[in-house]
Amino acid sequence: MPLTDPDRLFPVEPALRGLARELYDGVAGLPIISPHGHCDPRWFAENARFPNPAELFVVPDHYVFRMLVSQGLTLEELGVPRVDGGPVETDPRAIWRRFAAHYHLFRGTPSAMWLDHSFEHVFGLDQILSAQTADACYDHIDACLAQPDFTPRALFERFNIEVLATTEGALDDLKWHRMIRESGWTGRVVTTYRPDAVVDPEFEGFAANVEAFGALSGEDTATWEGYLTAHRIRRLFFKQHGATASDHGHATARTENLSQADAAALFQKALKGACTPDEADAFRGQMLTEMARMSLEDGLTLQIHPGSRRNHSADVFARFGRDKGFDIPGRTDYVSALKPLLDAVGMERELRVVLFTLDETAYGRELAPLAGAYPCLRLGPPWWFFDSYEGIRKFREATTETCGFYNTAGFNDDTRAFCSIPARHDVARRSDCAYLAQLVGTGRLREADAHAVAYDLTYSLAKEAYGL
Amino acid sequence: MPLTDPDRLFPVEPALRGLARELYDGVAGLPIISPHGHCDPRWFAENARFPNPAELFVVPDHYVFRMLVSQGLTLEELGVPRVDGGPVETDPRAIWRRFAAHYHLFRGTPSAMWLDHSFEHVFGLDQILSAQTADACYDHIDACLAQPDFTPRALFERFNIEVLATTEGALDDLKWHRMIRESGWTGRVVTTYRPDAVVDPEFEGFAANVEAFGALSGEDTATWEGYLTAHRIRRLFFKQHGATASDHGHATARTENLSQADAAALFQKALKGACTPDEADAFRGQMLTEMARMSLEDGLTLQIHPGSRRNHSADVFARFGRDKGFDIPGRTDYVSALKPLLDAVGMERELRVVLFTLDETAYGRELAPLAGAYPCLRLGPPWWFFDSYEGIRKFREATTETCGFYNTAGFNDDTRAFCSIPARHDVARRSDCAYLAQLVGTGRLREADAHAVAYDLTYSLAKEAYGL
Amino acid sequence: MPLTDPDRLFPVEPALRGLARELYDGVAGLPIISPHGHCDPRWFAENARFPNPAELFVVPDHYVFRMLVSQGLTLEELGVPRVDGGPVETDPRAIWRRFAAHYHLFRGTPSAMWLDHSFEHVFGLDQILSAQTADACYDHIDACLAQPDFTPRALFERFNIEVLATTEGALDDLKWHRMIRESGWTGRVVTTYRPDAVVDPEFEGFAANVEAFGALSGEDTATWEGYLTAHRIRRLFFKQHGATASDHGHATARTENLSQADAAALFQKALKGACTPDEADAFRGQMLTEMARMSLEDGLTLQIHPGSRRNHSADVFARFGRDKGFDIPGRTDYVSALKPLLDAVGMERELRVVLFTLDETAYGRELAPLAGAYPCLRLGPPWWFFDSYEGIRKFREATTETCGFYNTAGFNDDTRAFCSIPARHDVARRSDCAYLAQLVGTGRLREADAHAVAYDLTYSLAKEAYGL
Repeated sequence: MPLTDPDRLFPVEPALRGLARELYDGVAGLPIISPHGHCDPRWFAENARFPNPAELFVVPDHYVFRMLVSQGLTLEELGVPRVDGGPVETDPRAIWRRFAAHYHLFRGTPSAMWLDHSFEHVFGLDQILSAQTADACYDHIDACLAQPDFTPRALFERFNIEVLATTEGALDDLKWHRMIRESGWTGRVVTTYRPDAVVDPEFEGFAANVEAFGALSGEDTATWEGYLTAHRIRRLFFKQHGATASDHGHATARTENLSQADAAALFQKALKGACTPDEADAFRGQMLTEMARMSLEDGLTLQIHPGSRRNHSADVFARFGRDKGFDIPGRTDYVSALKPLLDAVGMERELRVVLFTLDETAYGRELAPLAGAYPCLRLGPPWWFFDSYEGIRKFREATTETCGFYNTAGFNDDTRAFCSIPARHDVARRSDCAYLAQLVGTGRLREADAHAVAYDLTYSLAKEAYGL
Repeated sequence: MPLTDPDRLFPVEPALRGLARELYDGVAGLPIISPHGHCDPRWFAENARFPNPAELFVVPDHYVFRMLVSQGLTLEELGVPRVDGGPVETDPRAIWRRFAAHYHLFRGTPSAMWLDHSFEHVFGLDQILSAQTADACYDHIDACLAQPDFTPRALFERFNIEVLATTEGALDDLKWHRMIRESGWTGRVVTTYRPDAVVDPEFEGFAANVEAFGALSGEDTATWEGYLTAHRIRRLFFKQHGATASDHGHATARTENLSQADAAALFQKALKGACTPDEADAFRGQMLTEMARMSLEDGLTLQIHPGSRRNHSADVFARFGRDKGFDIPGRTDYVSALKPLLDAVGMERELRVVLFTLDETAYGRELAPLAGAYPCLRLGPPWWFFDSYEGIRKFREATTETCGFYNTAGFNDDTRAFCSIPARHDVARRSDCAYLAQLVGTGRLREADAHAVAYDLTYSLAKEAYGL
Repeated sequence: MPLTDPDRLFPVEPALRGLARELYDGVAGLPIISPHGHCDPRWFAENARFPNPAELFVVPDHYVFRMLVSQGLTLEELGVPRVDGGPVETDPRAIWRRFAAHYHLFRGTPSAMWLDHSFEHVFGLDQILSAQTADACYDHIDACLAQPDFTPRALFERFNIEVLATTEGALDDLKWHRMIRESGWTGRVVTTYRPDAVVDPEFEGFAANVEAFGALSGEDTATWEGYLTAHRIRRLFFKQHGATASDHGHATARTENLSQADAAALFQKALKGACTPDEADAFRGQMLTEMARMSLEDGLTLQIHPGSRRNHSADVFARFGRDKGFDIPGRTDYVSALKPLLDAVGMERELRVVLFTLDETAYGRELAPLAGAYPCLRLGPPWWFFDSYEGIRKFREATTETCGFYNTAGFNDDTRAFCSIPARHDVARRSDCAYLAQLVGTGRLREADAHAVAYDLTYSLAKEAYGL
């Protein structure tokens, strides 16, 4: 019994369904462009087998385990490691059984959609996961993982990935990327420059990080000039390891364009740990503008994704640390927040700034009007909780009329769940084709144009926005 | 001529319509669980006939009369009592005729949908209400009301209500509930603990209310400890009258988790009437956390429904008082507002906190991410202006992908219009089935699962969330 | 080959499509009521030919050129005049070719929809605009413009416009309107009173403007009383030139109801240029309430459209001035902002206040609840970026259930692109009929009522709201 419907996500009305299917057939086979994500480059460097089904699907994926926690399971029962190293479940089969017994909680969610897609299309399962089928599914997947066809590189090739971007901190030595390149394997895995640890005065160990940053780059990062030069040097180093973009996840979209003297003074305050929260936010905002200026020099695309109130539960953060499903979005302002950066470099035609949001109310009111005016701006795809059919539908319905298709940046999967990549890109292609079919069916787009747009949304726009 | 379409609210596309109808057929006959509402328990205690059509449908229902007021009728013309006891229309037939002559104003609204449903299915009318049919409709309904089949208890049974919760203030003696129980009638009508008058320092007569609260409970409510104990005692008293929940309608979702010393000091300030607006808000916020802690002891579900700017028109409030259709929603923050309460008790698996909103922008951005992480949280159904087809559709489309179905709390009607109860639950069942049919039709949910979910949304989830 | 689909914007499902088409057939031929817009009255006064295709479609329309700018063209290349009079493209054919070569950027936008509609239905073109067809289209349109059938008055008549409102500043001499009237031409072109230059203390030259205002009205506008009287006199002057409304575009919806003494003091401060930004905002807010009071005297409808952060790009503003596509919407509060005005005059049954928004989140949460209660309020149609199929759909879906149809004000086109007027009204009629068909198909509205509502949305409601 197939786990997925071949016509999933297409409109039900027969004429629209036919149209959507035709559009989809034109793009279903295109290679995957994944310009933003969180896969571990070590997988492709070492090419070792994935350990077991629980560690592949449950333990590392906060989208999966937070849902189980929300209905009364504990993080310990699901094998999520504690900060203090205290005891948690270590039997992967026990974890898997708990997951399977609660699989109904995912009904109607994008997690269920990509899990079923992976189960069926990556592992060839034909039974629905449940308490009853838990062991059989476990054994089947585990047996697959032992096969050479299921190593990271084999899956990368089978998934038809043309390029996969990972994300590394500014202090990373990029040794896995180097190892991939030196291995002779031809899969294209590139890094992305993520300097939060040396850009955010509130990051744990900021001053020490900046010192290490100086050591790595050979610059005196105790001075503002040396610090900026160190960024230029590290960006170049990342570029040499394939990077075409930098990535910045701040709580707000605030930008600043201070005088260099004021920026230097603020930097000194940050190094001393003396910034107020507002000054720390201002420094992060100044650094976005500095990054944009460096992008004009070295061509890296600048990605801004504000709006998450991270580690919302003090208790979960204390016991389990970051990225445990308790990052909660909040309202985000873009119009006044981005003005300093846009006044500085917004009219530059060669610059690419990709904006993301976790606040859907900004799409029509702020983001599409901004992207429909400033030449440097592109809208990133809906992501996190909005990387889904409804998320994509609302994104297109809220932005297309104001900024068209060509001010959007194609799809990215933003995932650390490698096996979900084909499913996520498939959802995006289907959802976009469903939207385009609706436009054609209601006389808002010519059919020939819809085919061209489908191709661009799937392939060209991501390459253009990220210089890939 | 039927006033309602048997396939109303189902998708029009034939395959989806058939699917929605099948899902609906499976739940249409289930009993009504009404865990939150504002019916008057006296109706069921005394079981007297409802006075006349105007007082049943127009005079007490601010959803109905505010629409007439918005188009130029006056509250006086509609018989709404004045604060000063001054003259208003007293002829129910004259009120009814005005209502009937303006019935076209309700086109496309949920009010029209439930009114037509009541006219047809409760009273057996077969003509559309209008100036022409006003008298005939009046006479027909009035004649029905004189029949024993139309008394409150008879209708309760005919409506197939398994349990109906009313809402009473913390100072209420619950005599009608006692009278219902002592009458031997088996209809289950339970109360809900609503302590606004003794929890909100800005409530009229707060200090006197707290004093009366002490008298009722036999505690010294001039002290913080005695005040808290009085709550425990009154909650128990309400539990003995069937309560399974408390209910809190503050202007904001603010919570606090002050030290007991600070809370006690703030309480003293509140008793003296010396709180600033911000301190009053902080005290209300502290009491939400105290209530949550008491819920952990006594098992009452905690309901939080913030966001209304009440009595917006100073003129209407001065002349007619509260609840006159001029409560206007505003923007509501949940992410930072709820953090103190959630840090205190949010990870408790036995606690149930039901969150409501009047700000739809919070569904996808804040409420679903919170409910999809914290074990204590459940999302209440869309209500007030969003207790409607579109309201339910947007709620499901905005929340399901992030927190699934099982972090929602089923439907509640929140009404003081008794005859609207079957119609409102019917709208919810149809709207949910329409949504589920859409999921099945687009391959996002298996058909067998959709039947299970329909049952849970209609019946199980409300019982679970409210401990009924 | 037709450029537009005769069934465009109707639902695809055959039963709904048939229903929508029937509803549309009943209103497609009704005359156009355009109660709010920005056409130049000089066109109709002089009745000269429109200069060329580029100056008709590209150069003056910031919706068109901002999209081209967002993808890397410069304002200079598109012939937009510079503030300093420096060189820009002057060859209309070169501008047109650039526009044509980038016409794919408009795919899926309302601009493409009205441009194609104009090309086909106003000018009789039958080929799609592109780099290849640019010259042929240019020549065809240019040849048309030379014909007497394409003069402003001829097009006005052909467009079946019953009344067209333009917008003039309070200091305007209205000579073009006088010239139209004196010409004996029977087309009804009326003005609208827009006093920003004498109401906004932050407007360039405010004090001088107020002085000129005094000279025009013969009042001593150095005093608060004289200033108010001057408004009364100018409003009357505008009324004599057909005005039935005033128009106010502030950054916020703030209103105030200060004592006359406080207002007078604030006015003096404004005249001296001594207002803080907050005081300037308060003065604008006070003037909204004063305008509302004058509306009670003279019957002009008051239009409030807040929420735009104007001239977002400092660079574009410095080089090209206002209205260059860089007005970006922001969050807008109505509930507390409008309270002072509504407390002053909100319950007046003869007053008409039309509220607009650029923040769609306000529809369901704030605007519909307010309009569904206060007798003076009507909701203006979705506009700017929301004057579109999706904009209208979301507006109806978010407001109808709460305030019905009869608290909305019909459609207005708000355009300076004369040839887009028939297309824009056609989009509104089709979108409303599509929505009504959906209501009928799902049993939420009777078919006979839908026909009545379609007529009201197209014709009656605009006339009623604007006293036309």
